[in-house]
Amino acid sequence: MKTQLAALVALCSLTLLAHVQAAEPPIALAIHGGAGPLPKAQMTPDKRKLYEADLNKALQAGYAVLKSGGRSLDAVEASVKVLEDSPLFNAGKGSVFTYEGAHELDAAIMDGKTLAAGSVAGVRHIKNPVSLARAVMEKSPHVMLAGAGAEEFALQQGFSLVSQDYFYTQEKWDLLQEVKAEARKTSHKGTVGAVALDKAGNLAAATSTGGMTNKRWNRVGDSPIIGAGTYANNQAVAVSATGHGEFFIRSVVGHDIFALMAYGKQSLQQAANEVVMNKLVKIGGEGGVVSVDKDGNIATPFNSEGMYHGWVDKAGKVQVKIYQGE
Amino acid sequence: MKTQLAALVALCSLTLLAHVQAAEPPIALAIHGGAGPLPKAQMTPDKRKLYEADLNKALQAGYAVLKSGGRSLDAVEASVKVLEDSPLFNAGKGSVFTYEGAHELDAAIMDGKTLAAGSVAGVRHIKNPVSLARAVMEKSPHVMLAGAGAEEFALQQGFSLVSQDYFYTQEKWDLLQEVKAEARKTSHKGTVGAVALDKAGNLAAATSTGGMTNKRWNRVGDSPIIGAGTYANNQAVAVSATGHGEFFIRSVVGHDIFALMAYGKQSLQQAANEVVMNKLVKIGGEGGVVSVDKDGNIATPFNSEGMYHGWVDKAGKVQVKIYQGE
Repeated sequence: MKTQLAALVALCSLTLLAHVQAAEPPIALAIHGGAGPLPKAQMTPDKRKLYEADLNKALQAGYAVLKSGGRSLDAVEASVKVLEDSPLFNAGKGSVFTYEGAHELDAAIMDGKTLAAGSVAGVRHIKNPVSLARAVMEKSPHVMLAGAGAEEFALQQGFSLVSQDYFYTQEKWDLLQEVKAEARKTSHKGTVGAVALDKAGNLAAATSTGGMTNKRWNRVGDSPIIGAGTYANNQAVAVSATGHGEFFIRSVVGHDIFALMAYGKQSLQQAANEVVMNKLVKIGGEGGVVSVDKDGNIATPFNSEGMYHGWVDKAGKVQVKIYQGE
Repeated sequence: MKTQLAALVALCSLTLLAHVQAAEPPIALAIHGGAGPLPKAQMTPDKRKLYEADLNKALQAGYAVLKSGGRSLDAVEASVKVLEDSPLFNAGKGSVFTYEGAHELDAAIMDGKTLAAGSVAGVRHIKNPVSLARAVMEKSPHVMLAGAGAEEFALQQGFSLVSQDYFYTQEKWDLLQEVKAEARKTSHKGTVGAVALDKAGNLAAATSTGGMTNKRWNRVGDSPIIGAGTYANNQAVAVSATGHGEFFIRSVVGHDIFALMAYGKQSLQQAANEVVMNKLVKIGGEGGVVSVDKDGNIATPFNSEGMYHGWVDKAGKVQVKIYQGE
């Protein structure tokens, strides 16, 4: 009898909880740390713990903003800053080296409510490029600034510049030597990013990267290209991409997922899969996306061996994953 | 009797001609010289003749390629080069001045058949940026190169660099002084571009610009952004845009017109009008596009007072226009 009563109370609590949750507007967050993880064979349990710890930290930083009723823009910036500050990922600290042995960083952010956007390409002395992208969006009449000009703007906005040494990691230096010796194919796929839906129903996306190892000629990838690596529109979806940027630019990945949903009446899962697992694969574009729709659904397809990624879904469940099939 | 016979012969010839034309695959070309023309009140008949002459020359250059069975990529490059070489338009020779009194040029080109694309941003010493964009597409593993890096690549490809003086025109220098004295609002809308359909059914688009007068911080506009100012996809359409670039980036103008056609089942006219005359107007984005679809239909909507533009339609009819209602 006592057991039955306990079961009844538990059932009522669950029903009540579900009811309360249904009444609350959904929030959701997804992040990635790039579609070029360590090959599965090299990923020891100890290393995996380090990656998972920083991915969880990034999720917590963004989710805390959403949970307290904050803006999705603040959430994606908070998550991306954690990943930029981690030496493990190719963005901010730990960015890869260019052909000349330097660091050139790209980043973008977009507000799905207003379609306001900001982006920077080829900055060399900015600790958190995502925050400079946000300043471009909010404090300049422009959307995209490049190179030395973007840093001049940063100084005017009170940003401190850091030396190139700040971005140094031994691992990425060794990677450059390997790529130059052609001992290893260039990794195209290091990037970090976040997408979020807040309680007010606003979507946002942000992406940040050191680009590709051994890149030359001030190459710009897809991360700072609004519509390609970064896109948000409250009408449907927020997307942050990671992969071989050239293919992602040509495929206008973020806006294509949006358009398949908004005009093609596809679901988030259908649209994200169509672009990542079909259209990109057809032209040889390796990588993936994290995406969240206006109802808080999450899709994180990737056609590479792995993608550092994680999410907090609208039920509050936290997941961190790396390889296909996990 | 003789008159009636002559009329009959003429009618038969016309019918025959129409038949032959119907059997030939359609070709079409449209160009623009920017959505920021001289205010109508300042456009004297003599000045108008100059603008019309260079627009006609650009049309002829591109159309000659298409007529002889050449590629749409070659046609749009040929048309844009004529407009870059003209001092009248804001691209190549005649580009506007930056805040620092320099010239920084952006350009892009895209092949609708392969979705291959190339673009350059912020180059300072390239006579024909559209040709460098094409070299990026065809001779580099990248899509987008910026600034000094793009010029390093140009040198490796055998391009000659020109001094900044090459781009000088008194009119654009005076414009900078007026804008700095706040005697005049910044003109955001100088750009040149072309779109074409060739006999093989391939679409292409190209765009080139000096950007906006008094621009700072290595600002990048929509022209070199694939999906925004420049987009081509054989599945539906080729688009080259001109206008207040920031709004065109946020609206992903080129890909949005494509997507409304490909996924939304709209006609070219509907899709181009929806984006230019409705969506852009709603967020304050002044400007227009030239566009051609896979059947050779042409649409050239603009929401500004004027746009230097012209086309050769699939019947071979040539038109050059500047202001609304012409």
